[in-house]
Amino acid sequence: MAESSVASAPQVTDQRLVKGARARASIARHAADVASVEGLTGVSIGRLATDLGISKSGIATLFGSKEALQLAAVRAAREVFVEQIVAPSMSEPRGLTRLRAVVDRWFGHVLEPAFPGGCFRVSTLAEFDSRPGPVRDAIVTDHDEWLVFLAKEIRKAQDQGELGPGDPDALAFELDAVVSAANTARQLGADAKVATARAIADRLLGRIES
Amino acid sequence: MAESSVASAPQVTDQRLVKGARARASIARHAADVASVEGLTGVSIGRLATDLGISKSGIATLFGSKEALQLAAVRAAREVFVEQIVAPSMSEPRGLTRLRAVVDRWFGHVLEPAFPGGCFRVSTLAEFDSRPGPVRDAIVTDHDEWLVFLAKEIRKAQDQGELGPGDPDALAFELDAVVSAANTARQLGADAKVATARAIADRLLGRIES
Repeated sequence: MAESSVASAPQVTDQRLVKGARARASIARHAADVASVEGLTGVSIGRLATDLGISKSGIATLFGSKEALQLAAVRAAREVFVEQIVAPSMSEPRGLTRLRAVVDRWFGHVLEPAFPGGCFRVSTLAEFDSRPGPVRDAIVTDHDEWLVFLAKEIRKAQDQGELGPGDPDALAFELDAVVSAANTARQLGADAKVATARAIADRLLGRIES
Repeated sequence: MAESSVASAPQVTDQRLVKGARARASIARHAADVASVEGLTGVSIGRLATDLGISKSGIATLFGSKEALQLAAVRAAREVFVEQIVAPSMSEPRGLTRLRAVVDRWFGHVLEPAFPGGCFRVSTLAEFDSRPGPVRDAIVTDHDEWLVFLAKEIRKAQDQGELGPGDPDALAFELDAVVSAANTARQLGADAKVATARAIADRLLGRIES
């Protein structure tokens, strides 16, 4: 008996770690859902405990603080975005084809948002832009890395002669501004503005409407 | 004595009304300041009472509810925007000159914001886009009216042959998206992106950089 319990101890610990990691991931994902509607300020340990039927102390043990929970929500939202938009586009041929695939999936994300309040980044960037601290830093880093990724893909398309000249950073900024505004319009049910944004993005990527 | 008090009664009431209106305006203006940083959710009767050193019951008497206070903040912010950007531009000659004056003042508002958290509209639109109700309706109406105003000024410049053809609503949408993104960048201290936005706006308005 003693031998058996010693032998099984690491396995029990592993299972606990796996269960803990799963619980963390599922709580963080729900926190991102809440934040997309009510902002990250609306994400509290008490709120999530009520929503998910888990004890507050359970969530507090997993995350420690409201700020840690907010940071976990930012990471969870980022993973969803990478999984749905960036990762599948990377199998497309590099250049304008891939860039357009990214933008197509991005508009797909606007039209059928993964989060109930629409784009997590748009919601939280406006919420935290005037509140310095680790949460703002995490949101800004995520946004900056997205703009850098877009600019790199734009540069590749330019290098292959598939897109006209111009500052890739400026084009990335403009695309991001237009798609972000489309997200807000979509949340307000102004679907005509989403179509407007789509036409602008197509023009910016040199796609002439037939 | 009886005659005198009867005669002075309306004047006392007038003074009270004036004082009440002034107090309302000053509280609503502060509410807009708070909302620009912390969102309209952060605007509560208790919070404003503490900030302004007024009793909660005093504010409650003037506004009645948190929602009424939030709506007053939306109106106050709108008045500031009209006063600083729209009104002074109306004395410019109609057409591209006026449109550029509007955009210049708009960028001025981004660089030296009237509210501590930057553009009130950008902050609150992202905050309330997924929360139906009278506050969202007021923010959306304000935003829609701004886009309609811009589109009208664009159309006038086109009619005078000073701006190329194209859908005025689409150009208004794109300008608004770019200046809104510039506002967020400015709040984050990313001044290079504000310059990028300015160059995009100039291109959209056919102003070639020398």
